[in-house]
Amino acid sequence: MKLSSTDLADLATGAAFLGTGGGGDPYIGRQMAQACLDEGLTIEVIDPKTLADDDFVIPTAMMGAPTVLVEKIPSGQEAITALQRLEHHLGRRAAATMPIEIGGINSTIPLVVGARLGIPIVDADGMGRALPELQMETFAVHGIPGCPMAIANEWGDTALIETRDNRMMEWLARGVTIRMGGAAYIAEYSMTGADVRRTAIPNTLTLAIRIGQVLRQAREQHRPPFEALLAFLPETIYSYGRIIFSGKVADISRATRNGFSIGQARIESTADATDTLTIEIQNEFLIARRKGKVAAIVPDLICVMDSETAQPITTEALRYGQRVTVVAVSVPAIMSSPEALETFGPGAFGIPESYVPVRNIAE
Amino acid sequence: MKLSSTDLADLATGAAFLGTGGGGDPYIGRQMAQACLDEGLTIEVIDPKTLADDDFVIPTAMMGAPTVLVEKIPSGQEAITALQRLEHHLGRRAAATMPIEIGGINSTIPLVVGARLGIPIVDADGMGRALPELQMETFAVHGIPGCPMAIANEWGDTALIETRDNRMMEWLARGVTIRMGGAAYIAEYSMTGADVRRTAIPNTLTLAIRIGQVLRQAREQHRPPFEALLAFLPETIYSYGRIIFSGKVADISRATRNGFSIGQARIESTADATDTLTIEIQNEFLIARRKGKVAAIVPDLICVMDSETAQPITTEALRYGQRVTVVAVSVPAIMSSPEALETFGPGAFGIPESYVPVRNIAE
Repeated sequence: MKLSSTDLADLATGAAFLGTGGGGDPYIGRQMAQACLDEGLTIEVIDPKTLADDDFVIPTAMMGAPTVLVEKIPSGQEAITALQRLEHHLGRRAAATMPIEIGGINSTIPLVVGARLGIPIVDADGMGRALPELQMETFAVHGIPGCPMAIANEWGDTALIETRDNRMMEWLARGVTIRMGGAAYIAEYSMTGADVRRTAIPNTLTLAIRIGQVLRQAREQHRPPFEALLAFLPETIYSYGRIIFSGKVADISRATRNGFSIGQARIESTADATDTLTIEIQNEFLIARRKGKVAAIVPDLICVMDSETAQPITTEALRYGQRVTVVAVSVPAIMSSPEALETFGPGAFGIPESYVPVRNIAE
Repeated sequence: MKLSSTDLADLATGAAFLGTGGGGDPYIGRQMAQACLDEGLTIEVIDPKTLADDDFVIPTAMMGAPTVLVEKIPSGQEAITALQRLEHHLGRRAAATMPIEIGGINSTIPLVVGARLGIPIVDADGMGRALPELQMETFAVHGIPGCPMAIANEWGDTALIETRDNRMMEWLARGVTIRMGGAAYIAEYSMTGADVRRTAIPNTLTLAIRIGQVLRQAREQHRPPFEALLAFLPETIYSYGRIIFSGKVADISRATRNGFSIGQARIESTADATDTLTIEIQNEFLIARRKGKVAAIVPDLICVMDSETAQPITTEALRYGQRVTVVAVSVPAIMSSPEALETFGPGAFGIPESYVPVRNIAE
């Protein structure tokens, strides 16, 4: 399918939702993709089923702290530089690009790359949400090496990284990203069409568009958007979601440390100020605790949304006093297998609690 | 010429002298090169005059804080990995390798690379001493780009860096080095034989060996080693040297910061404890001040030596209570041109004082 301006607006909303607070400001990504349409370029999204087994796919993304991204707007060329650096290294052209994560700006960076290079974007990704580190990919869980990976900045400076494992790739690339000013652009996990079908979470780009559409149409038709959203989720591979808390942002702390946005948000119930939900942040919302108990935990989605408009709020946009509703969503099986949990479950973040699917947590 | 074990011992001494405190422990480098001889390998050093104009030369080196190096001994394979990574990128094999600096371990890393790969080592370097940053090269002063450059660690992890200028190369490579544990191995400033002759400081490897030889022979023959050394220097392109201070190390502070060994040494005159020489350190000894006045300043060499044996002392080996004699040496014209001073003169280190050749400073 060819994306329209309306699709891009819906995608921005849906990607902010699936971003669980992270992945960078989707508004910036939407503007970058819209600029491509305004120039008459085509953003062509293809189903992974249509890839030939040996089609060569190079995913592209932004890397860094979302808090930095909003102060250092990309031109769109950065990720192309990274992709072409990797193509040159491999001696092979990409037949398509793909998101590595569906959250925030990283759902749209590949759209810009695809539009400008005239290649399609595969409707799939490697996180099914946003996650803060490069080894936290279903690609990695299923044996695709992230390296060789290329990293580029707005000056055309590049580094081509080859490491023994994906954690070391993340570690070195993060160091380069920090020295590139806290935000950089990458091409990694290059793979064949057959590997995309084996390791990616399918149809998450169109899912994000659908989520945005559901919220937009509910607003347009003056139906309650949260109800519309929660009614829609069971139709998707994200089969279950519910509101876990509503209240007012009482406290938000956030710092850029080691190249990440690290922080904590505390939300106070409007009905009872002693009833609070505390959410831990590493780029994304990772765990929500209420009265010392887990209310939702990574990799399940924790989405902080404006209570009135149901607009998802990114970690860097969270402000004291905002009225918010927190929705938790269970993830598809590919994201909660034992191997997936080892790669991006609570333990991967040093969180002591074990993963419990939100559907198994008493309301 | 083929280097002998005695040459390696002399080189370790001479390289420690020319290292002006930095460049890493030459003892470790000597052991690595000696191991090559013990295995029956040949260390062949060639005069830059014998290079064909289009011979392809890839310099190799250690990068990082010398204080880390002594705790993380290299196998010798690391720099070969870096060189081969760069060869693969360029699609071209090196006909020879070369030191980027003549100080400390970086005078011997290329010997190990050359011996193990069966290629000669060019008798020249790009600093004529040791200096802490990668853009501080006569290669760079004369227009050779440092990039593409390769960096490797002991696990075979690599990064291939391409940047708009040599400062950005240093900045990114330093970031990678820090994340590789504070010491890594590099191949950079690849160039032709014609460029070597145009931009390198010639015959510094054999000069270092000669310096070590002069000191060794004086000791063996019970002649005063400092006199022998100062009498020898006028025969070389380092045409002038003198003792600027003698005393006891009264204070030494040293920390590893941003990937460098940063510190200060204070030496007290044994005759008059109020008469002190203070030396600032960034990997190397950069400026010596006595009573608030410059006694010697970068790029001139500041060499702290054991007062009895005339053995040069590296910054990380400097200890409270040591009796030391400080020798300052003027550098050849290629190292003190206005362009060279802009690249590695006092201003490049944020030192407020201007360069004054030691020969112009009143005793």
